[in-house]
Amino acid sequence: MNDTGVAAVADEITEQDMANAIRALAMDAVQKANSGHPGMPMGMADVATVLFNRFLKFDPAEPGWADRDRFVLSAGHGSMLLYSLLHLTGYEAVTLDQLRNFRQLGSLTPGHPEYGHTPGVETTTGPLGQGLTTAVGMALGERLLNARFGDLVDHRTYVIAGDGCLMEGISHEAISLAGHLRLGKLIVLWDDNEITIDGGTDLSVSDNQGDRFAAQGWHVQRVDGHDPEAIAVAIELAQASEEPSLIACRTVIGYGAPNKQGTSATHGAPLGDAEIAAARETLGWPYPPFEIPQPIRKLWLKAGRKGARARAAWEKALGEAPAATRTAFEAALSGKLPAAFAEQMAAYKAELAAKAPRVATRKASQMALEVINGAIVETVGGSADLTGSNNTKTSQTLPVTADDFSGRYIYYGVREHGMAAVMNGLALHGGVIPYGGTFLVFTDYARPAIRLSALMGLRVIYVMTHDSIGLGEDGPTHQPVEHLAALRAIPNLAVYRPADAMETAECWEAALQSDSMPSVIALSRQDLTAYRTEVPTENLCARGAYELRAADGDAKVTLIASGSEVELVCEARDRLQQAGIPTRVVSMPSWEAFERQSDAYRRDTLRPDTLRIAVEAATMLGWERYVGDTGVTIGMTAFGASAPYKELYNHFGLTVEAIVEAAKSRLG
Amino acid sequence: MNDTGVAAVADEITEQDMANAIRALAMDAVQKANSGHPGMPMGMADVATVLFNRFLKFDPAEPGWADRDRFVLSAGHGSMLLYSLLHLTGYEAVTLDQLRNFRQLGSLTPGHPEYGHTPGVETTTGPLGQGLTTAVGMALGERLLNARFGDLVDHRTYVIAGDGCLMEGISHEAISLAGHLRLGKLIVLWDDNEITIDGGTDLSVSDNQGDRFAAQGWHVQRVDGHDPEAIAVAIELAQASEEPSLIACRTVIGYGAPNKQGTSATHGAPLGDAEIAAARETLGWPYPPFEIPQPIRKLWLKAGRKGARARAAWEKALGEAPAATRTAFEAALSGKLPAAFAEQMAAYKAELAAKAPRVATRKASQMALEVINGAIVETVGGSADLTGSNNTKTSQTLPVTADDFSGRYIYYGVREHGMAAVMNGLALHGGVIPYGGTFLVFTDYARPAIRLSALMGLRVIYVMTHDSIGLGEDGPTHQPVEHLAALRAIPNLAVYRPADAMETAECWEAALQSDSMPSVIALSRQDLTAYRTEVPTENLCARGAYELRAADGDAKVTLIASGSEVELVCEARDRLQQAGIPTRVVSMPSWEAFERQSDAYRRDTLRPDTLRIAVEAATMLGWERYVGDTGVTIGMTAFGASAPYKELYNHFGLTVEAIVEAAKSRLG
Repeated sequence: MNDTGVAAVADEITEQDMANAIRALAMDAVQKANSGHPGMPMGMADVATVLFNRFLKFDPAEPGWADRDRFVLSAGHGSMLLYSLLHLTGYEAVTLDQLRNFRQLGSLTPGHPEYGHTPGVETTTGPLGQGLTTAVGMALGERLLNARFGDLVDHRTYVIAGDGCLMEGISHEAISLAGHLRLGKLIVLWDDNEITIDGGTDLSVSDNQGDRFAAQGWHVQRVDGHDPEAIAVAIELAQASEEPSLIACRTVIGYGAPNKQGTSATHGAPLGDAEIAAARETLGWPYPPFEIPQPIRKLWLKAGRKGARARAAWEKALGEAPAATRTAFEAALSGKLPAAFAEQMAAYKAELAAKAPRVATRKASQMALEVINGAIVETVGGSADLTGSNNTKTSQTLPVTADDFSGRYIYYGVREHGMAAVMNGLALHGGVIPYGGTFLVFTDYARPAIRLSALMGLRVIYVMTHDSIGLGEDGPTHQPVEHLAALRAIPNLAVYRPADAMETAECWEAALQSDSMPSVIALSRQDLTAYRTEVPTENLCARGAYELRAADGDAKVTLIASGSEVELVCEARDRLQQAGIPTRVVSMPSWEAFERQSDAYRRDTLRPDTLRIAVEAATMLGWERYVGDTGVTIGMTAFGASAPYKELYNHFGLTVEAIVEAAKSRLG
Repeated sequence: MNDTGVAAVADEITEQDMANAIRALAMDAVQKANSGHPGMPMGMADVATVLFNRFLKFDPAEPGWADRDRFVLSAGHGSMLLYSLLHLTGYEAVTLDQLRNFRQLGSLTPGHPEYGHTPGVETTTGPLGQGLTTAVGMALGERLLNARFGDLVDHRTYVIAGDGCLMEGISHEAISLAGHLRLGKLIVLWDDNEITIDGGTDLSVSDNQGDRFAAQGWHVQRVDGHDPEAIAVAIELAQASEEPSLIACRTVIGYGAPNKQGTSATHGAPLGDAEIAAARETLGWPYPPFEIPQPIRKLWLKAGRKGARARAAWEKALGEAPAATRTAFEAALSGKLPAAFAEQMAAYKAELAAKAPRVATRKASQMALEVINGAIVETVGGSADLTGSNNTKTSQTLPVTADDFSGRYIYYGVREHGMAAVMNGLALHGGVIPYGGTFLVFTDYARPAIRLSALMGLRVIYVMTHDSIGLGEDGPTHQPVEHLAALRAIPNLAVYRPADAMETAECWEAALQSDSMPSVIALSRQDLTAYRTEVPTENLCARGAYELRAADGDAKVTLIASGSEVELVCEARDRLQQAGIPTRVVSMPSWEAFERQSDAYRRDTLRPDTLRIAVEAATMLGWERYVGDTGVTIGMTAFGASAPYKELYNHFGLTVEAIVEAAKSRLG
């Protein structure tokens, strides 16, 4: 199907000329910036030209068109390829001046493509393999919405990936999952240029990539990446395939730079004035830097306009869709939570207040999800093969399979990293709200993708159970110690660690309401006492920290804890009160939320005039800011151990006695 | 080659009986612990029995025998398989009581196998895919030492891996690298039981694993994992192959438990008393828990003794080797640094003091490595495809290739995670000291393996360059912000961030001397002023922090910084001095080292009586402990941006002016 393509080539101007426009812009912008990566854009210019000129369904006038094809530059260092395409096809904001300001502060043309920063950039790429995997999420999102809304969502996802993307481990998770789910509308164009930064690929890799992809259920082709007709035929065949497609495009890196092409010298450094002059000669491109001849520019703009009709038709179809469909579609795409959600959560919380269940917070999370998934049809859950442990599945979430995308639950397999990047792709695609689970310790496996969730500001919710030595017998390999600190260190990521069922409901609510920030919800394996037994009048966890229990009398001590350790400090408080030491308890489920509160609120909550003791079954890095110079932190200072969890708490000194003793000894 | 095997089977006792001993111990120990994973040990008991009984070269009397075959249980949750094998073959420490104390505090039988904790455990496993990749490192270590010492090192590396290991992304990096380097003595026994925690593997994976491995240069076989003769034939063929080998062993998880076998119910929970009784019936195993009949025990002990002769022969060969060879071999295996190293470093540092080179610390690292690699022949360097950027290659380190293992440099490819786990394997193998580079931001990709370096206490050195926004134009995807904090949060990991060439030399020296702790050395892309121009009388970086510049007069302000920001605080100091504010500078290359100093040293260094200001181009999580309640931290509070680095420092307020202003405003 090539119904969105234009008549391939004008009389005089060829796609080779169009591709040379990319090459010239790439080498000139890199040269002007005195840094960047000319090799990939020059090598893949022909492939990208054929894709954008003949196949890609997009409309620069409306970069947010819901049913556009998605294009992901997984080899993000080749950003000038993308910026050139955006400029040439008519994305207004991406002016020639922006290309001239490549890699300069505040420009729309940063070193690697940044989502939310430059129109037409579908996802932030650069860390290799992420774009490919995120694209799997986009292709999956398309199928999920297609199952719900039919032809209103019916587009392809294209990826340009490099050798680096395919060497990264995450590529395995991506390819395997895409093959398993038979995401036939995903097409990967591999820049098979046989070059990496260190030199020839033969220095480090001997994979038969085609056989590898085929073994994982992909349709595989090989083409000359400088032959437009061959590329076009391959894309057509890929479009016809029911499997996801790999097209291995044999290219010459730095194509056109006569003395450097085909070598790693073109990968990540300016070509230099002499080589650029020689390239102009070789390519037959006599024009000055940043000048595109009008006939070529016109053809590119024509390629950019070709999607307008398809978009108009799509908008008409949306307008003519049944009102219920249209309303549901627009609601899904808006990302807004339904009004009923707040009411249903309020009813659920009232019930919790009455019942005060003693449950593990991972179980409380499932209870909250049962309400959430009932109220919000856009949620799509999953787990990296720990469904029963993460408690991520509810009655509403039937499995998504290759044969049926109407479900709302994804068996991600043992692929934590892939899961996270796929969730990024789902969130970027829009129309769904992804959440997924594994053990908190395995956030390490997913960390590069979690970082991108944060950098892009995506509503992705990480359900991270077994959040401390409280997991017990599985031992130090499975016990997070440093992970709360390591996650709190990531900018624009909300880390929640609720203490009971009520807090868990509140944290879920806050995470869902936070539509430009990902959340990690850290949850216990072990049962925890319900301390929040009042019907809440506000979401206290959204405050980050709050006084859970006041002191009887003039407070001398403030005990601060999160999650499972709130139980410890509440017991310690009672003992201290009995010993005549007025003590209050602050529950602190989220540092990030707390930091957003007013100075007055924070001071009143922390009460610096009291002795402050913070307790968390984790490394205490950073807790000093909440206890001050005179305060005490009680946590983990080393890796955990394998034993029943109550023994571990004793063994590592995380006890009521230790807290009481610390308070008494400090008070003298 | 089966020269270490014993006559396969005694008259009455079969290998099936031997395997049933494993099954019984596994199900009984899990039941007694009331937690654990019986399914895998019961499923793979036959395979493991054939391997240990007929093939594995080992001697329980000397677990540290340098030329033993390595056995890695990559599916570490099946730890009772390994503990049973260690007990049955005669590792003295692994008594029946230890098995009875499975998963209890202080036992030698924790939930997952822990290196350094239990004799015979070659590496800590549990986080899936790590064991497989670490084994690639061991197999590579074997080849490197074989190239150096000939037949003194000539052993195999065996792995038992599960579906989870093969789904993890890191498996791709491991398999690809092993295939590329043709590590023919690596044999992976895949527990192909078609079950994961969530249910059948068909829920989440459709890979043709055999084709996948073949596409990456592996020898592939499939066998019935319950047919001892078929298993033995497959292992023999694998031994004969010049490629690394995969043997897909089709097994029944929980084999012998009649009502639960073949289902995920056996994976991670006790079978229950009734099912255990039924399994005893099914297996023909009427013996009480933890009782092994003497004839079966004797056969197992015989299997454990079969390597003694081979070990004796090896010791004889070592004794008869030329003195120089023996000395070099023993020196390599000892892990001790040669005496000449300290002298050569001292000479190098004297030269640095004289020359005071203004260089990037990544370049200074290469300069130090030139000395180190000359003095210590055991170092093996590498980079994840950033050799020229990480500056990890020196004149001594020729490439390691599939045809020539005499080199000392590994082109790891774009495989950060694989590199880290392979380095763990190299360190565990012994005889080499691995270091490897990538950008600091990509420690995220390698984090699960870095954590294992720390948990195992291995001397692995991570050379992490481009350590801040100082990398400039590549932008926020490539600029570490949270990574120093996230790494400092890991227990038993030393993070160094040197400020100039001298400090870089000192940090390298400290990292090499630290033989039970991994190190991360964070290095700048940009050139830095040399402040350390005196010939050092001690390794000041090994102190963690020290006064780099004293105040003129009675110090009012202490400026603390690491790495590239030392330059900023030194300039700020001079300005403050000019303004009449006596100011000292503390350089703090390593928190971990500083925390080990005496209270007095720390107090004298930090000088809490002064206004303390800490500056680091990173998130400031945790710095409060060094500046106190009245102090100031100046760092990053969000992700970076793409621009020339000097502009970024200004943009993000990391300037001499900001430091001076902060000091003045606090002093009033």
